[in-house]
Amino acid sequence: MSDGRTELSQGKRAEVVASFERQGFLRELGARIVTLSGGHCVVELPFSEAVSQQHGLFHGGAIGAIADTAGGYAAMTLAPEGVDVLSAEYKINFLRPAFGQTIVADGVVLKAGRSLTITRVDVWAVDGSNRRLCAAVQQSIARAHSRSPGSD
Amino acid sequence: MSDGRTELSQGKRAEVVASFERQGFLRELGARIVTLSGGHCVVELPFSEAVSQQHGLFHGGAIGAIADTAGGYAAMTLAPEGVDVLSAEYKINFLRPAFGQTIVADGVVLKAGRSLTITRVDVWAVDGSNRRLCAAVQQSIARAHSRSPGSD
Amino acid sequence: MSDGRTELSQGKRAEVVASFERQGFLRELGARIVTLSGGHCVVELPFSEAVSQQHGLFHGGAIGAIADTAGGYAAMTLAPEGVDVLSAEYKINFLRPAFGQTIVADGVVLKAGRSLTITRVDVWAVDGSNRRLCAAVQQSIARAHSRSPGSD
Amino acid sequence: MSDGRTELSQGKRAEVVASFERQGFLRELGARIVTLSGGHCVVELPFSEAVSQQHGLFHGGAIGAIADTAGGYAAMTLAPEGVDVLSAEYKINFLRPAFGQTIVADGVVLKAGRSLTITRVDVWAVDGSNRRLCAAVQQSIARAHSRSPGSD
Repeated sequence: MSDGRTELSQGKRAEVVASFERQGFLRELGARIVTLSGGHCVVELPFSEAVSQQHGLFHGGAIGAIADTAGGYAAMTLAPEGVDVLSAEYKINFLRPAFGQTIVADGVVLKAGRSLTITRVDVWAVDGSNRRLCAAVQQSIARAHSRSPGSD
Repeated sequence: MSDGRTELSQGKRAEVVASFERQGFLRELGARIVTLSGGHCVVELPFSEAVSQQHGLFHGGAIGAIADTAGGYAAMTLAPEGVDVLSAEYKINFLRPAFGQTIVADGVVLKAGRSLTITRVDVWAVDGSNRRLCAAVQQSIARAHSRSPGSD
Repeated sequence: MSDGRTELSQGKRAEVVASFERQGFLRELGARIVTLSGGHCVVELPFSEAVSQQHGLFHGGAIGAIADTAGGYAAMTLAPEGVDVLSAEYKINFLRPAFGQTIVADGVVLKAGRSLTITRVDVWAVDGSNRRLCAAVQQSIARAHSRSPGSD
Repeated sequence: MSDGRTELSQGKRAEVVASFERQGFLRELGARIVTLSGGHCVVELPFSEAVSQQHGLFHGGAIGAIADTAGGYAAMTLAPEGVDVLSAEYKINFLRPAFGQTIVADGVVLKAGRSLTITRVDVWAVDGSNRRLCAAVQQSIARAHSRSPGSD
């Protein structure tokens, strides 16, 4: 278990924020990071037409995307400075219909490793003063060895 | 393995297309269904800023979303008419960086069951005349028992 | 999240124990249930040649099997009496080499549903006074509708 | 997709067989490798009390264990000689009750990478002249960097 919840260095925090801001997909969705510490990242996404599915709920794809993001940045906080990360795999269980004003993905590192970091992410749907666990995720994050497209 | 690849009834085809068209999230991303038959659905997503990540590749969240969609509609083709479906869970492995003009998610039903239908989805990145397998998905689709938000 | 940790009825406890005792595979491995309450089950497995792999660690297959068992019985505690359960799917991440005198799988219900119950299981390797998280599992448990072999 | 199905070197074949023979868990279960080529491994497990569950079917834990094994050795065939492998994670969907004389796990490599190799495994239950797909697995295999217990 990560000792987690430690303060981040200014450099690491700046790296994570810069990475997040370069992501067109998440900006488009309206997601933002609301908490960031060692081994921990919380991402929030407000409801909009752009993230809905056919019954007016949050779309599973949007839920998966912010969960993947929260886990990935939780892992990145524990990587050496200058090291970028990417998702190797994740698994998501949808527990309850996701409706409300926002969804909140809370990602924590279970184990930070040299090649893989394993996280769990809980996604909550916030509707007024209620919040319900709507998805549970388990994820592996790898260090990116090269940024050139096409590299394996 | 589903015997799949059978022609759909007009009613079932209309149901799937109508469901797809109600999804704000996928419309926003620019996804479209390119193949639909019994136990099989292919969804295509063109590259755009809205589906990119920080290195100019397709975002993993977008890859997951169209894979989830292709598998879900593949399952829906085998459900009785009038029965809606939703994702219970999926697992995605990212195999290679996804770059090119489009990504294509090819979903097939492994087993159609009364309560759960299991699918596999291959996601290909198409770059000019090349295509590379960039993600592999395994998924469970449930029948939706009620459309009222908040039902379990 | 399950309110969990409530006392079980005598009938439900007897059902779980009887089910466990009919499992040849687990008896063969030497597993036993050490904790059982509403939405919670802990299963312990001692080290032996029968559960080892090529480097003298606990075999991943044995780790998966007791995790699957702990999650399944955690779910069964919340099912109506007389209802049997079975695993629909699970996903396991191996976090650290598993060595020591025993491994302990701690399963909790995240959400008990009519058709699917979702659990998380932590597997700890206990070596003297140390314990280390060696695997993390997320799982879906279904109600068994029929016990006749071959039914879907 | 692996070009697969190429002949193995004598050295690699000997390594895989030796690794398999050191696994107490699998020997105990009665598993054996029936096919081995580049990127492909098939493992067979006969039915016995030791691999059964409470209804006389193959136990899910045994199904998971031979699937994990078939995928792992499929990956090992493509690793450099002298490099050992271990499972980083896998996900299994149980499709149908597994009964019959044997189960057969057929593992193929989807992508062989420097740090992770991704496989898919189909598990078939063979009952007389029938065989039915009873489980589907997707898996990540890592290279083992050190064999010393306790290393991360």
